[in-house]
Amino acid sequence: MSAYRILIDANDQKGIVHNVSSIFYKYDLNILSNNEFVDKDNNKFFMRSVVDGDVNLEDLKKEIVDILPKDSSVEVIEPKKKNIILMVTKEMHALGDILIRHEAGELEANILAVVSNYDKLESLVSKFEIPFTTISHENLDRDEHEAKIIECIKSYDDVDYIVLAKYMRILTPTFVETFEDKIINIHHSFLPAFIGANPYKQAYERGVKIIGATAHFVNNNLDEGPIIAQEVKHIDHAYSWKDMQRSGKDVEKVVLSRALKLALEDRIFVYANKTVIF
Amino acid sequence: MSAYRILIDANDQKGIVHNVSSIFYKYDLNILSNNEFVDKDNNKFFMRSVVDGDVNLEDLKKEIVDILPKDSSVEVIEPKKKNIILMVTKEMHALGDILIRHEAGELEANILAVVSNYDKLESLVSKFEIPFTTISHENLDRDEHEAKIIECIKSYDDVDYIVLAKYMRILTPTFVETFEDKIINIHHSFLPAFIGANPYKQAYERGVKIIGATAHFVNNNLDEGPIIAQEVKHIDHAYSWKDMQRSGKDVEKVVLSRALKLALEDRIFVYANKTVIF
Amino acid sequence: MSAYRILIDANDQKGIVHNVSSIFYKYDLNILSNNEFVDKDNNKFFMRSVVDGDVNLEDLKKEIVDILPKDSSVEVIEPKKKNIILMVTKEMHALGDILIRHEAGELEANILAVVSNYDKLESLVSKFEIPFTTISHENLDRDEHEAKIIECIKSYDDVDYIVLAKYMRILTPTFVETFEDKIINIHHSFLPAFIGANPYKQAYERGVKIIGATAHFVNNNLDEGPIIAQEVKHIDHAYSWKDMQRSGKDVEKVVLSRALKLALEDRIFVYANKTVIF
Amino acid sequence: MSAYRILIDANDQKGIVHNVSSIFYKYDLNILSNNEFVDKDNNKFFMRSVVDGDVNLEDLKKEIVDILPKDSSVEVIEPKKKNIILMVTKEMHALGDILIRHEAGELEANILAVVSNYDKLESLVSKFEIPFTTISHENLDRDEHEAKIIECIKSYDDVDYIVLAKYMRILTPTFVETFEDKIINIHHSFLPAFIGANPYKQAYERGVKIIGATAHFVNNNLDEGPIIAQEVKHIDHAYSWKDMQRSGKDVEKVVLSRALKLALEDRIFVYANKTVIF
Repeated sequence: MSAYRILIDANDQKGIVHNVSSIFYKYDLNILSNNEFVDKDNNKFFMRSVVDGDVNLEDLKKEIVDILPKDSSVEVIEPKKKNIILMVTKEMHALGDILIRHEAGELEANILAVVSNYDKLESLVSKFEIPFTTISHENLDRDEHEAKIIECIKSYDDVDYIVLAKYMRILTPTFVETFEDKIINIHHSFLPAFIGANPYKQAYERGVKIIGATAHFVNNNLDEGPIIAQEVKHIDHAYSWKDMQRSGKDVEKVVLSRALKLALEDRIFVYANKTVIF
Repeated sequence: MSAYRILIDANDQKGIVHNVSSIFYKYDLNILSNNEFVDKDNNKFFMRSVVDGDVNLEDLKKEIVDILPKDSSVEVIEPKKKNIILMVTKEMHALGDILIRHEAGELEANILAVVSNYDKLESLVSKFEIPFTTISHENLDRDEHEAKIIECIKSYDDVDYIVLAKYMRILTPTFVETFEDKIINIHHSFLPAFIGANPYKQAYERGVKIIGATAHFVNNNLDEGPIIAQEVKHIDHAYSWKDMQRSGKDVEKVVLSRALKLALEDRIFVYANKTVIF
Repeated sequence: MSAYRILIDANDQKGIVHNVSSIFYKYDLNILSNNEFVDKDNNKFFMRSVVDGDVNLEDLKKEIVDILPKDSSVEVIEPKKKNIILMVTKEMHALGDILIRHEAGELEANILAVVSNYDKLESLVSKFEIPFTTISHENLDRDEHEAKIIECIKSYDDVDYIVLAKYMRILTPTFVETFEDKIINIHHSFLPAFIGANPYKQAYERGVKIIGATAHFVNNNLDEGPIIAQEVKHIDHAYSWKDMQRSGKDVEKVVLSRALKLALEDRIFVYANKTVIF
Repeated sequence: MSAYRILIDANDQKGIVHNVSSIFYKYDLNILSNNEFVDKDNNKFFMRSVVDGDVNLEDLKKEIVDILPKDSSVEVIEPKKKNIILMVTKEMHALGDILIRHEAGELEANILAVVSNYDKLESLVSKFEIPFTTISHENLDRDEHEAKIIECIKSYDDVDYIVLAKYMRILTPTFVETFEDKIINIHHSFLPAFIGANPYKQAYERGVKIIGATAHFVNNNLDEGPIIAQEVKHIDHAYSWKDMQRSGKDVEKVVLSRALKLALEDRIFVYANKTVIF
């Protein structure tokens, strides 16, 4: 007897819940938790159920697919550790938070490797016996540099997510398409405010009273991918932009770890450049 | 075609969702939103569905009751304004917030009357053409005083909720039993901290860095009824206890209005001295 | 013996605190509270002291001015109710919150009048015996309309602040200059995100997980004046943009009232399109 | 030219600011930041100034002491890394957060050692080349066990703070007195709610909608020492007490690190079992 996660993303129509729950009932599955959401404007239906029972997953999935409208997406997932690769540049806070959570067994994840364009964080990562690969961008154009990173990532099997834990270079469309819907980024801003470089300096100059951070999937429009999680922190006039940056790190690491946890637990649906999170 | 709210509180057993959704399907009801929660420890199942369709509510309810375990509770509700009575003493902030929301049409409620042990707030209430009754506690023992209030409340038909918007007297078990599960109170503290009188002074003396407020149903144990909503606010050493009290008012009114809104929208289940809120 | 507020905005130089506190000492003034801030980047010094004692305010001010660098600004204020005029359109929540606070005696303010381009809120305002003037914009060009509003406002003496409590029209540079540094606005967005019209719809489409509101002084660049206060609220995918708008009202009214309170207590300095708040 | 921190804790009297700032002026010190607070009820004056200049610290301190009322406390501090010892039991989150901040250079601290009653966290700590000492409490009474810990701590010179990063045993008065005002604890509750053991289970049973954590100095009354920082997190009915515990860890580590940072930067005054924090 195991617990399984069933994720359904379908065009809405009457009877979906009835039909799906009939299948659960037929297979004698016990519903541990169940979340549904209907987006009326877009006529979309989302459902995440956790069930336990004794069932052939392929059969279960096939039956669910059969009773859903065409073009529906169904996933039947047996929870296990997902494989992730971290990409970093020089800052330690977001990486460190993930490493400690990993070490504490808080994450349903294996960290396969950490990839960086600098070697600065190698000594930290190596403490945890996780492979660290430095791929310098020096003397390489953007495509050449990314080709090397892609090669490195592809040398690992079954990579579920690539986590940009303060990787400070912009990715090309090629990179993004190669790992579509798999790249999670932390943006050091309360998006869509202060898109782009040095948001803390922008925020300082604007005199805001709150700073924030945003975790999102990466798509081809810089900083415009589907938002997973956001958090903010009150500040005041006494914060220089360096204070804001320093203070912002605490928000960044919290938000990135929260988003990663949601992804690892299969709680995120993406559509219309937005997320549904159960 | 109308929207109805269906609330189910049952002992959990396999097939509940299937059986209920079968009934929805049979009556050709469209599920607008659906929330479920299973408390494994207590083997309890809770469900709140909003459906639209054309159906006889009595028939629908009967069918649902029939497929549920005994001792289940089912409500099929046609949304309409609920009748509420406010009880106050001398403070204006919580009352004022409800009056303005009522005036703005934000609340699914008719305010039948405001009852107070002082006349101080009569001028405010009368601006809104809502009956205000002063029932002084002077020269009356507690039972006599409450008997008068109960008589006043009972002179109104179909009172759904009694909202204690800073009513500063302790209610007797008789009063509470008379209006069981119908009394919503705002406690000027982050319960269970600082139970009882003058919590701000207690909080000041303890040197806390956060103050809060709690909205809860009233039961016979003072300040120990099921919690509906809580909110907090950061403070610092510069707050005197009067500052804390002043500042706490903003938290109190927000929390009470939030709890009242949840109640009016039939989003609250109560069990085991706790609430499930959808 | 009275309490006075002393506000100093000066170019920083060594000895300011010493020189100012010498004057306080000489006049035998008791310092009740004292806040200082030095902006090193801009070499600016800000100070707000509350003192009590028996002193001629003109003399005190003159002595302080004399020991400060040229181009310093000094205010010596005897706390009293400030005169404010509210401008609104059709929404009740921000206006209502201010009216109730005013009625409860929470604000150091006299509300001289409420001015609107619609008559919708007249019935609410008249309950509180505050003059309400409808100045419709129909059949008037923007300058003509504003000329009438300016005339109306100028018919009142000593207006300290004009509070835009959801006044939904853009003000011209002429209007803004006429009441420079006196206009406080609530913007229904976490600025600088979603500048302009219908920010909730923009936020919905962007799929944000937090919404917010910003109170700011109005200058000639729409939505770009100095920020006084900001607040946010977590939301999720289940919020339609109308839900966001509804829910955002609670944030808006809280932020506007907080900003107004800061202004009434002379706690705000403006410089470099930012605010220092003590 | 260096920056110094001057901390003054005195009975309030007229002229303190004047007299202190006169000394700063005389020594040609530049005031980088300045915070003052007067507690009128207790007639106490607190001041924290950061100044830069070229001065003999002993002379400066002596002059300040001379102009203050008797029984005042004055500290003149040249900022440098403080020496801290961490005490832990088995949980990794709070310890891990401090280790990463230390590694990242975020803390003004040297971690001299980690002491634990179990060896579980030794492998994590040894990665960072920090001494780890296991002092098991097995077969020892409380006094014997603590005597060993005290001996261990005293083997290090100049220990500024002892940080209980989820050390799960109650300390005796002897221990607390030995390191008076030096012990910082994280309590896994929003004190004073849920004092004592298993607060998450208590919170679950009470059905609270917010959980929290409190960092405080330890005194002889368990969980009743002066509060430094508090933070909370909203939860709902779907949280089991284990979920609350898991989720609470994020609050705990944030609050403890914040409190530690405040201590390391000499921002905390303690009096009347409360803290003043600049």
